[in-house]
Amino acid sequence: MSSVLYFDHAATSWPKPQGVVDAMVKCMQEYAANPGRGSHQMGVKASRTLFEGRKVLAQLFHVANPNDISFTLNTTSALNIAIKGYVKPGDHVICTAVEHNSVRRPLEYLKSRNQIEVSYAETNAKGSIDLQKLEKLIQPNTTLMICNHSSNLLGSILPLEPISQLMKKHGVKLLLDAAQSAGVLDIDVQAMGIDMLAFPGHKGLLGPQGTGGLYISPELDVEPLLHGGTGSQSEATEQPKVRPDRYEAGTPNTPGIAGLVEGVKTIRSETVQRIHTKEWHQIQTLMEGLLSIPGITLYGPELGEDKTGITAFNVKHAEASEVAFILDQSFQIAVRAGYHCTPLAHETAGTFGSGAVRASIGYSTTDAEIEQFIRAIQEISRHYNQV
Amino acid sequence: MSSVLYFDHAATSWPKPQGVVDAMVKCMQEYAANPGRGSHQMGVKASRTLFEGRKVLAQLFHVANPNDISFTLNTTSALNIAIKGYVKPGDHVICTAVEHNSVRRPLEYLKSRNQIEVSYAETNAKGSIDLQKLEKLIQPNTTLMICNHSSNLLGSILPLEPISQLMKKHGVKLLLDAAQSAGVLDIDVQAMGIDMLAFPGHKGLLGPQGTGGLYISPELDVEPLLHGGTGSQSEATEQPKVRPDRYEAGTPNTPGIAGLVEGVKTIRSETVQRIHTKEWHQIQTLMEGLLSIPGITLYGPELGEDKTGITAFNVKHAEASEVAFILDQSFQIAVRAGYHCTPLAHETAGTFGSGAVRASIGYSTTDAEIEQFIRAIQEISRHYNQV
Repeated sequence: MSSVLYFDHAATSWPKPQGVVDAMVKCMQEYAANPGRGSHQMGVKASRTLFEGRKVLAQLFHVANPNDISFTLNTTSALNIAIKGYVKPGDHVICTAVEHNSVRRPLEYLKSRNQIEVSYAETNAKGSIDLQKLEKLIQPNTTLMICNHSSNLLGSILPLEPISQLMKKHGVKLLLDAAQSAGVLDIDVQAMGIDMLAFPGHKGLLGPQGTGGLYISPELDVEPLLHGGTGSQSEATEQPKVRPDRYEAGTPNTPGIAGLVEGVKTIRSETVQRIHTKEWHQIQTLMEGLLSIPGITLYGPELGEDKTGITAFNVKHAEASEVAFILDQSFQIAVRAGYHCTPLAHETAGTFGSGAVRASIGYSTTDAEIEQFIRAIQEISRHYNQV
Repeated sequence: MSSVLYFDHAATSWPKPQGVVDAMVKCMQEYAANPGRGSHQMGVKASRTLFEGRKVLAQLFHVANPNDISFTLNTTSALNIAIKGYVKPGDHVICTAVEHNSVRRPLEYLKSRNQIEVSYAETNAKGSIDLQKLEKLIQPNTTLMICNHSSNLLGSILPLEPISQLMKKHGVKLLLDAAQSAGVLDIDVQAMGIDMLAFPGHKGLLGPQGTGGLYISPELDVEPLLHGGTGSQSEATEQPKVRPDRYEAGTPNTPGIAGLVEGVKTIRSETVQRIHTKEWHQIQTLMEGLLSIPGITLYGPELGEDKTGITAFNVKHAEASEVAFILDQSFQIAVRAGYHCTPLAHETAGTFGSGAVRASIGYSTTDAEIEQFIRAIQEISRHYNQV
């Protein structure tokens, strides 16, 4: 499999730095016991690893207290905890029209139970948002705005600061879905006014699958979604109020978090800015290459505009799923075709009926791989369009 | 750390078979992409690994359809999904007095919101239950009985078949918490009449932390607790009804499950019966050894009775936490002291004020380690009791 050209980083980054795998192995072999203060040495080492994870993430996201970060199975779990724990019956919630199903489905579920109202803020086909229209959606009972930082289909970047300022003005809290931005775009929860931040461990942060997390501002009182043992206040029938225990019931994924620590350290030494710049240049080259091929339609931001390392496109006369299949079978290139769990974004981009091919690059993508990708699409387009 | 005498298997088993770690590394290095049908080859391989996990677990637990098993972060997540997704407002739920906080806290949470009534079925100090008293707790609105298979404090084993038959007679569904029994005691969901089964991957099944699962009988309609992307029916705003997607929103822990597959295979080739027999003999030797030491009080089943590889005890004139600390610091022996997230079981055993030391053995425990453990407790007891 090592000859695979992996252009599916938006789903899970791969390959990981060797240190990530090594840290997981070391944890499994030496100290993967249950973390817990006052436990035996292996348990103490496991606890320290979890705390180190919170610490490096807190540094990355400018979180004042690492204990305001709790670990989850994935971003979806983090979003569910944030949404279901924060909104109250009668609340109105706004999200954008380019949200992932991990935001839309929890909201639609609550709406279907007549618990909340939901408005979807329009974005244009490029993924950008009209702030005046957004402001008009705010109602007296609006308590939460949820938006992604970067669209998992279009790579477009939402203007966080203006959105955050607008919400602050109206007393609306902001939950950021950083699925496509953690490790790739600067995130400063304090400067950016982010009240809750849901993030994956296995994408831009270069950790393994099975890791993710949620930052909750200390000013917010969010009900836990999962109740159970925490190793603390065992005698209480209530979930402890102390963080992170409040949101971390049951045994955590210690080896996964050990790997994540190494991933985040790689990001921090490389710097988010340098990674974003590298990926931006590469995705520009990719887009230019694709635009030069007859029969290719690109979606999302124009050439030269800021975006993350994601590009969605279609080849004329070819189904997206066919293109993905040929890339996989004949070129050993891994992409994704379909709806990418974000049907609203496809409505926005005008690809709802057909879906699109999504190519997403990452930390390890090389310039040579970009060229190889372009040549493969040239061949496929030539085949379908007899140019 | 390799010289540690690890007697904390009831929290997480350790060390794992080498194949478990190897499978995780292989997954991370070769195919840790997002599982999804119709995806690229790495994604297909990831899907297959998840399906293989369901298949070997289905064989182990006698589940007819592997897709009725969904993967979770841990047993606590599985129990939360089962409990919160099954009970309806107005329901009455019964659980035993030796349940873990992962059962008690979700129930007490729902009770505190005036949604359900909860009764705790009495057990005696040895952990056994009076079926006649249990039957008297059943009300017309009782819909669910939850019990562990084996107590995480006492190692006692609840009589599953009679409990299951009693519940069937009254139309009450049975949720089994197999935290201490999966991989160690026979579990046959069909023959034993288990409607839902919550189990850990990282204890008796020898998989890594970050894995666990939930079996739900196809006859039960359980609401999902987490909503989000599943890679299936992306265009629907509702969580898909198809299993396992219904209960698995977001990216799963593919490397963890790859490891779990190897753990379960080890168990199946070794057989649960042989593992239980080995552990039973060892825990008997341990109990005999401890009982021969002046000043030791043992809790739970008597010598000769069936139990799993767990023993709780106290040393006269010593705090449980002191004993655990000395074992750790002076003998490199890992145990746990305290309440073990099961305060009710401590009330039952009469150790609510003080807690207890819990020694728990596992698959890899040797007879020599049992002897070494007994000698350490002899020394500690001598120190405290000047014998």
